[in-house]
Amino acid sequence: MRILIVNPNTTVSMTEKAAEAARAVAGHGTEIIAATSKSGPASIEGHYDGAVAVPGLLMEIRDGEAAGADAAVIACFDDTGLEAARALADIPVVGLCETAVMTAALVAQRFTVVTTLERSRILIENLVRHYGMGARAKVRAADIPVLELEDEGSGALHKLMREIERALQDDGAEAIVLGCAGMADLARSLQREYGVPVIDGVAAAVKQAEALVAQGLRTSKRSSYAAPLPKIYTGAMSAFAPRPS
Amino acid sequence: MRILIVNPNTTVSMTEKAAEAARAVAGHGTEIIAATSKSGPASIEGHYDGAVAVPGLLMEIRDGEAAGADAAVIACFDDTGLEAARALADIPVVGLCETAVMTAALVAQRFTVVTTLERSRILIENLVRHYGMGARAKVRAADIPVLELEDEGSGALHKLMREIERALQDDGAEAIVLGCAGMADLARSLQREYGVPVIDGVAAAVKQAEALVAQGLRTSKRSSYAAPLPKIYTGAMSAFAPRPS
Amino acid sequence: MRILIVNPNTTVSMTEKAAEAARAVAGHGTEIIAATSKSGPASIEGHYDGAVAVPGLLMEIRDGEAAGADAAVIACFDDTGLEAARALADIPVVGLCETAVMTAALVAQRFTVVTTLERSRILIENLVRHYGMGARAKVRAADIPVLELEDEGSGALHKLMREIERALQDDGAEAIVLGCAGMADLARSLQREYGVPVIDGVAAAVKQAEALVAQGLRTSKRSSYAAPLPKIYTGAMSAFAPRPS
Amino acid sequence: MRILIVNPNTTVSMTEKAAEAARAVAGHGTEIIAATSKSGPASIEGHYDGAVAVPGLLMEIRDGEAAGADAAVIACFDDTGLEAARALADIPVVGLCETAVMTAALVAQRFTVVTTLERSRILIENLVRHYGMGARAKVRAADIPVLELEDEGSGALHKLMREIERALQDDGAEAIVLGCAGMADLARSLQREYGVPVIDGVAAAVKQAEALVAQGLRTSKRSSYAAPLPKIYTGAMSAFAPRPS
Amino acid sequence: MRILIVNPNTTVSMTEKAAEAARAVAGHGTEIIAATSKSGPASIEGHYDGAVAVPGLLMEIRDGEAAGADAAVIACFDDTGLEAARALADIPVVGLCETAVMTAALVAQRFTVVTTLERSRILIENLVRHYGMGARAKVRAADIPVLELEDEGSGALHKLMREIERALQDDGAEAIVLGCAGMADLARSLQREYGVPVIDGVAAAVKQAEALVAQGLRTSKRSSYAAPLPKIYTGAMSAFAPRPS
Amino acid sequence: MRILIVNPNTTVSMTEKAAEAARAVAGHGTEIIAATSKSGPASIEGHYDGAVAVPGLLMEIRDGEAAGADAAVIACFDDTGLEAARALADIPVVGLCETAVMTAALVAQRFTVVTTLERSRILIENLVRHYGMGARAKVRAADIPVLELEDEGSGALHKLMREIERALQDDGAEAIVLGCAGMADLARSLQREYGVPVIDGVAAAVKQAEALVAQGLRTSKRSSYAAPLPKIYTGAMSAFAPRPS
Repeated sequence: MRILIVNPNTTVSMTEKAAEAARAVAGHGTEIIAATSKSGPASIEGHYDGAVAVPGLLMEIRDGEAAGADAAVIACFDDTGLEAARALADIPVVGLCETAVMTAALVAQRFTVVTTLERSRILIENLVRHYGMGARAKVRAADIPVLELEDEGSGALHKLMREIERALQDDGAEAIVLGCAGMADLARSLQREYGVPVIDGVAAAVKQAEALVAQGLRTSKRSSYAAPLPKIYTGAMSAFAPRPS
Repeated sequence: MRILIVNPNTTVSMTEKAAEAARAVAGHGTEIIAATSKSGPASIEGHYDGAVAVPGLLMEIRDGEAAGADAAVIACFDDTGLEAARALADIPVVGLCETAVMTAALVAQRFTVVTTLERSRILIENLVRHYGMGARAKVRAADIPVLELEDEGSGALHKLMREIERALQDDGAEAIVLGCAGMADLARSLQREYGVPVIDGVAAAVKQAEALVAQGLRTSKRSSYAAPLPKIYTGAMSAFAPRPS
Repeated sequence: MRILIVNPNTTVSMTEKAAEAARAVAGHGTEIIAATSKSGPASIEGHYDGAVAVPGLLMEIRDGEAAGADAAVIACFDDTGLEAARALADIPVVGLCETAVMTAALVAQRFTVVTTLERSRILIENLVRHYGMGARAKVRAADIPVLELEDEGSGALHKLMREIERALQDDGAEAIVLGCAGMADLARSLQREYGVPVIDGVAAAVKQAEALVAQGLRTSKRSSYAAPLPKIYTGAMSAFAPRPS
Repeated sequence: MRILIVNPNTTVSMTEKAAEAARAVAGHGTEIIAATSKSGPASIEGHYDGAVAVPGLLMEIRDGEAAGADAAVIACFDDTGLEAARALADIPVVGLCETAVMTAALVAQRFTVVTTLERSRILIENLVRHYGMGARAKVRAADIPVLELEDEGSGALHKLMREIERALQDDGAEAIVLGCAGMADLARSLQREYGVPVIDGVAAAVKQAEALVAQGLRTSKRSSYAAPLPKIYTGAMSAFAPRPS
Repeated sequence: MRILIVNPNTTVSMTEKAAEAARAVAGHGTEIIAATSKSGPASIEGHYDGAVAVPGLLMEIRDGEAAGADAAVIACFDDTGLEAARALADIPVVGLCETAVMTAALVAQRFTVVTTLERSRILIENLVRHYGMGARAKVRAADIPVLELEDEGSGALHKLMREIERALQDDGAEAIVLGCAGMADLARSLQREYGVPVIDGVAAAVKQAEALVAQGLRTSKRSSYAAPLPKIYTGAMSAFAPRPS
Repeated sequence: MRILIVNPNTTVSMTEKAAEAARAVAGHGTEIIAATSKSGPASIEGHYDGAVAVPGLLMEIRDGEAAGADAAVIACFDDTGLEAARALADIPVVGLCETAVMTAALVAQRFTVVTTLERSRILIENLVRHYGMGARAKVRAADIPVLELEDEGSGALHKLMREIERALQDDGAEAIVLGCAGMADLARSLQREYGVPVIDGVAAAVKQAEALVAQGLRTSKRSSYAAPLPKIYTGAMSAFAPRPS
């Protein structure tokens, strides 16, 4: 089984970290294929970065599927481009936020997502609500620029821990969800530190991708995620025109 | 006051129809500037088309703001790219779905949105819920490809009317929202036909854009829609890199 | 176009302030006609005042419509009598709370309404939820009797500003809605002070009333707001008996 | 214990029917005092009638409390004036809709309210949602003018039964709530006919009023239902000015 | 009328306290029959205790009904076994949490439930939401083991009062619900102390049980609570096999 | 990795079918251990059966954990006893309904659960809502007694297919969830038949159990699922007394 992990941030070190987290949980016989978007922002921080990252992401999904991937993971906690990718691909595609909150819901009644910047907090809060977890999950921002997570000396870990402690103290959180793909390497040590489940979205998503493949499930092509209709695409985006099937 | 209407579908006849609908309701002293995206799908039908249309749309928003627009309307009922556009622009930006359902809520307790294709129905249902109108509005699809709305002989009007009749009969709808920018020219005659308010999103959005400008309101730059941070954008999307302010 | 603004508080200075706020945003060609209820409480503070204010309010709506108004605004943030007025009138009628939260939702993801007394706070919280904004808006009371807003030396502005600061600090508010018609004159200066959108309900409602008229939209008379049926009205309220149409 | 039942419809035969239903369920030692509003519509059908009925209703609540009632019931399924009455009175006040749906929820998971006219249907649907029962209850209208319920030969019973049958068949209703005070005399026979619980709001409300008195509970005067503040009331409504306590 | 109160905690002193609270509010002619479960935990603290208490509880419901009870109350605030008891019995069965929050909703817009241990807090929060009161009620835990409520010198009352004060101060609570059957004796004095309604679940449930009987209402046997089907029950639980009717 | 599957129905053929479905999707290196409850109903149909099945289920969870299971699945779509099992066990425990609807949500926007009897329909509808999927999923009953699923000649498959067809036609379902453990063997062929994803809860739950173990996640013992406190358990249930840790 081949699971494609696409990093829609164009920063390669983040892809490597995600791939490592993926391989640490992948089942026997699962091959992790990691791809970095070739076009878009170095890091996704807020709605604008997220939207502009989508074409590069979709290209990697398309190419990865053509190269034989069985399922794909979008390695950004904002789940950017997830619905478009599901419409595009025949293989199943999963996001980090959706799979992380699902996973948290299996081990805790109440939990808190700790993300990076304030500008992402409400975006994720809206996602969490859309996924049906609004009554169970809170979202906090630790005031960490995404790329600081790539830099050990940045103090990012300290800020993250302070926010986790607030979640445990003030939110009554029973588990913590790490709200950024760039935090994937921290889950295990934070779980040991705090004695509550700490969920990393990359790991959660990889296991869901595997689960779907094992169950023989693919995205429904009935209604919401029907394949794009053949039509004229103009200008810079003409490379994205759906091909007649 | 200059209101920019951006059609993220690359079909010019649709832009013209929207501009006409806009001018029909615009206040004295409002200039309507209509722009058609130069890059993306001829029509937006579903999640994939919607995502790929965003870069072309954002380019028009950026250029229109630079050219002096006071507010912008995204002329697609899926409200595609709305949040990214709000983060990008300093001027206010509004969508058709959000403003149409708000407007409907001022004249009716229960209403039905009639859109084009089944693949757009649930997308819009999710939007309607996100806008807080899930308990008041139903969404129906009339099985009309978007571009058929540009073709008078296509039978599209007949299909649309049949679905409006079902909404009145079966949903207890007190008003109808036309769920596609391409239906903008039909609102008045359908309203006369059925004797209930019929809301066109283009008209609704133009009036909201005017209203925001008149009140001196702009998108809050605190948190969700903060301006994109300066950073490296790679590849085909490097043209979208935010400029340091 | 003539927009009728009815103040259901019987305090004339409040009406004048609302009329001024209305005229400041009204479009070219819009005439603002302000009316003060002749019967009811000097200020509306809580459910009882609100209910008793309704007959006086309805009388003004009826007379204003007969005198040729094209739309009406109920100038009280509790939206008291709004549904009855919609059933009574053929012209569209809008409320301050409903239009202010709608307007806020176009420029911010999360916002806080700051109202006067604690007794109005939950009333407004319930309204906000009914309008579908419960997940996006918080409501705070600044402990200001309504009529203190008419008195510059009362310290009301200071209390209001303290509560706005708490909303920004503790609620993560991206915009502020002023939750009383009597605050209409403060919106612009508070917006300058805090650098976030500050929405005044009177201005918001006037622009919505104009927007409905421009779009040719009237309250649906199908179901919820059907015209009152002719029937016997007894006693003091017999003046309110619907006339056969 | 004295329970005051106020009929805000000015039709005396309806009051008598409600009083009879009340006495049929009242506990040993409970005296039922029935009052008919002296001012307002003969029957309450929709938002306008409901609003105009409130002053007459409040007058009866005030007089009944002064005369020694221990609790009050507002005998109209729209719960019109309920919040104002709670603010006014020191004794507890309950409504028919709120107590009927609560009672239904104790004997069934899903139930349907059958009311009179379509114009009341959505009004009640909104109430049911406000009371937290939106996910458990449906609302249907049987197309019966309220006063037809006073006329045995009107065919009203036949229409009501047809709608109950649809509720059982199509809604999966496990119980039926009669959605008009004027149906109070029909509950027992309909329950026998259909073999499911049939709840009459008058009976439900009387038992809740008794229950509150027996528990020594009165409306909280903290916040929402604080006593009206002393202030000037102008014009026809000056009789309603709160007296300083 | 005979109301059966079953204490699913096996601690007899708690049953006695509940019976006393029940008798204090019971109507003239109501006989309170109190039964203590013969099998299960001494106190119910959390999901595990609650589940294991159910068989003992069901046995008492069955025996009590056979002995002629007209309605039953499950005297545990977690409403454990409530749905199973409703399916089993022909007589109506009510729970403490459901009836207490309903009762609170008749005298206050916002209220707080104060329960014992943190492990019960979210359990009750989920119940409250299931009963449709999620938007009106908060839940707090006072960190009191259930059996400490049986011991006057334990300091439990002090902890409870501190939490009530926080509810009034921080939650804007207008009423307090005591979230444990073992607090039944404290309601009246706490109500005097704080001047807001204080609701005890035992009293609330008894009055609801009486109300259902007086109205001639029983649990609907249509769908959710249909009588258990005759079938083989194996092992230790074979005593619970439904008997063919 | 050893995954324990506990069938709380005491029917062994159903356990075998579930074990087969589990093995068909289990990862390389996962051992499936299937256990049948020794005490309780032959099939779980409704609230009463579900409650009485819990002690037998908990015994198997306890014994399975002691024997070295790494995670447990409760093989009943009602998720009976799930919260109690989570409090009891240190290993993660998952239910069929919760994992099946989560899985469906990864491949479809809207889906329908098809269960057996009407009496289970609303029970599952409430579960689905509790899991946050109320807006995305409908629930239908195919009128099939559970044990008919064990009997090929019973016509159960025909009834199930008819209801799936209604879900596709009338609900706009994009995927189907089989709402009973006894349907586990039908998923693949029904998926082929209808061309939409068909999710079996047993398979979904096994993959989630594996996923949790692979991620090193266990049920949070903070708050909701804290281990049962040591205390006296009386009578027949004394075998369930928590042992001091």
